[in-house]
Amino acid sequence: MMKRKGALEGLRVLDLTRVLAGPFCTMMFADMGAEIIKIEQAGTGDDTRQMGPFKNGESAYFMNLNRNKKGVTLNLKNPKGKAIFLDLVKQSDVVIENFRPGTMEKLGLGYEDLKKVNPAIVYAAISGFGHTGRYSQRPGYDIISQAMSGLMSTTGWPGGEPTRTGTAMGDVLGGLSCAIGILAAVFNKIQTGEGQKVDVALVDSAVASLEIINMIYLVEGRIPQRIGNRYESTYPYDSFRGSDGSLVIGAGNDKLWVSLCKVMGKPELAEDPRYLHVPDRVARHEELKAIVEEWSTKLTVDEIYEKVNNAGIPCAPIYNIEQVVHDPHIAGDREMFVEMDHPTAGKLKVTGSHIKLSGTPSGVRTPSPTLGQHNGDVLGELLGLTGEDLKALSEEGAI
Amino acid sequence: MMKRKGALEGLRVLDLTRVLAGPFCTMMFADMGAEIIKIEQAGTGDDTRQMGPFKNGESAYFMNLNRNKKGVTLNLKNPKGKAIFLDLVKQSDVVIENFRPGTMEKLGLGYEDLKKVNPAIVYAAISGFGHTGRYSQRPGYDIISQAMSGLMSTTGWPGGEPTRTGTAMGDVLGGLSCAIGILAAVFNKIQTGEGQKVDVALVDSAVASLEIINMIYLVEGRIPQRIGNRYESTYPYDSFRGSDGSLVIGAGNDKLWVSLCKVMGKPELAEDPRYLHVPDRVARHEELKAIVEEWSTKLTVDEIYEKVNNAGIPCAPIYNIEQVVHDPHIAGDREMFVEMDHPTAGKLKVTGSHIKLSGTPSGVRTPSPTLGQHNGDVLGELLGLTGEDLKALSEEGAI
Repeated sequence: MMKRKGALEGLRVLDLTRVLAGPFCTMMFADMGAEIIKIEQAGTGDDTRQMGPFKNGESAYFMNLNRNKKGVTLNLKNPKGKAIFLDLVKQSDVVIENFRPGTMEKLGLGYEDLKKVNPAIVYAAISGFGHTGRYSQRPGYDIISQAMSGLMSTTGWPGGEPTRTGTAMGDVLGGLSCAIGILAAVFNKIQTGEGQKVDVALVDSAVASLEIINMIYLVEGRIPQRIGNRYESTYPYDSFRGSDGSLVIGAGNDKLWVSLCKVMGKPELAEDPRYLHVPDRVARHEELKAIVEEWSTKLTVDEIYEKVNNAGIPCAPIYNIEQVVHDPHIAGDREMFVEMDHPTAGKLKVTGSHIKLSGTPSGVRTPSPTLGQHNGDVLGELLGLTGEDLKALSEEGAI
Repeated sequence: MMKRKGALEGLRVLDLTRVLAGPFCTMMFADMGAEIIKIEQAGTGDDTRQMGPFKNGESAYFMNLNRNKKGVTLNLKNPKGKAIFLDLVKQSDVVIENFRPGTMEKLGLGYEDLKKVNPAIVYAAISGFGHTGRYSQRPGYDIISQAMSGLMSTTGWPGGEPTRTGTAMGDVLGGLSCAIGILAAVFNKIQTGEGQKVDVALVDSAVASLEIINMIYLVEGRIPQRIGNRYESTYPYDSFRGSDGSLVIGAGNDKLWVSLCKVMGKPELAEDPRYLHVPDRVARHEELKAIVEEWSTKLTVDEIYEKVNNAGIPCAPIYNIEQVVHDPHIAGDREMFVEMDHPTAGKLKVTGSHIKLSGTPSGVRTPSPTLGQHNGDVLGELLGLTGEDLKALSEEGAI
């Protein structure tokens, strides 16, 4: 059997996305062997090329999200640039963009236009509020989606402010969701020969992440609040303080509660009728937090972890990023940080692929492209353009 | 052209998953028309059948995540139950489970076993720490993945505690990521005829969500901290108080900053050299927050929103779940809450599909199954079992 570059070898994607949500989506595809032709605005390129953190003047933000991709420049407002794009569409499986809805239509490159030159094209769009509906023209940064989905309203502490999750989670959820939509549409295209449009909104994606929280309101009419680190459904399932930091313990059922009482040297608590079953313990979560912390604050996090983990109770340290990057399981066994060698930046570590495939492993094979690095390769190979053609196109600002 | 049930019509999935991460993954597939055969433990079923919130005694947690699926019971420890499972594997595309790693191997149903009866099977597993590596046997609830990935360490407020995101985000990220891995493996199988194992860990998935945050440490050696609602890369991009609540404003670049100064009636600030460029404003974020709030706290959230939005500056109210559920764009135009009619619970709203496909729309077509509801349909149609066979199997505890 022939060795494949990855599960998605043979899938060609024209990638017009910038910044985070779109490039995160196509990064996963690139890691899995798809051919990602990243098309950047001639002259300037993806905004994140100017965004930190930097290594030797190169943006690590850009380098991480754009590894394994080919880089081509095109000016879609130039008639020849546009013609080249349409010629590429004829030979591709997927087009993806994350412009403000309507931008591609204004260029004459909306889904209805592209469908005419390639009816099988899968056209994917990521936007703040989606391509339909009354808010579709509103700009939709990550923080907007975290605010309007209800995610911020349920993150944080009683009496405290609504809290943004400490990563661009709306963008990440949008990128993951769009990847699913594209691959489903590709499956459908293989069966039927027909393409379609995939429309993913950051706000919708964040709303979908609140599955159970939404159901509490939809069924009970109760508005879920900020409840710190505990969980609506069971207790003790929360963070607890030690003498030198905190850790999380998930004693989620009655059996684990009994075990925890023994670990704390308070076996009598296990028989206390006030705390016997899950609903009792959820109702008395404040008392129980005080009881557990009366014990835990006398010990270091390492000591607590050892005792609780040895008793078979789920628990974990609360790592900072440095601890994650040096953890022997996460960084070592699971290879979640891998080295990349970039011509300007040199060697640096980037976040590895989290989707582990046994037969066609994902990987970081090539560094992110410099601006227009593969103009010759891609436009030569797919469209037969010569060096002279490229020179002329460049001079008139088409590439 | 024949009308298809969805993009994934023709994909048959044997679904052994329980609780959240796995069922969320197969719910998306079911919404897109895949045939999901949910296999539950005979007698008890998915744990979430007993978890709230409830409507007419039926779990809304379960009903939401398991709509559009067929329900079959099997006792995999019973030799006949196991034989039936293997017969189903021969006729399926995908098997998915989220047991503790090793559980399927102990039953003689690990990937290596299933591959023998169907070399093209895609075997997907979701677990806390993955199927390889030194922590693979540790139990991995959502809170464990939020703690060990670094996500909690970067969520929350300066001087405050590490904070859990207010939904089971590790489970959601794991479910989304596994869906991508499965669909990529199915694409590969269509090209090559070969199956493989997809191994997704909640911890890895949460680590991957921290893309840019990880790069700050990997490149600069600086450990990202909890910084409330602001963003590392630009300012003002944060929440701001009004007289009756808060809202978020994302004046992410120099042009938007100038616009915001005008909106606040302080055009002179736009020329103040202390705040001219993005890095200046990030460095002086505390001063700027005070300046913006000096203006914003005199107005209601609605008044601030109208002024800022009319100036073309991205901004949004911080919705609670009730506001999300009643928003005319999210709930109305984007159909993010849809009605389902369940035989016991009656009509209830569930979270709709956030992946919008133009040609093969996703949808909620059938309610979640009662325990073993489709034993006759599935085992009859696929394996030719008769009513008498089923009765005998039920009596000996195999189904």
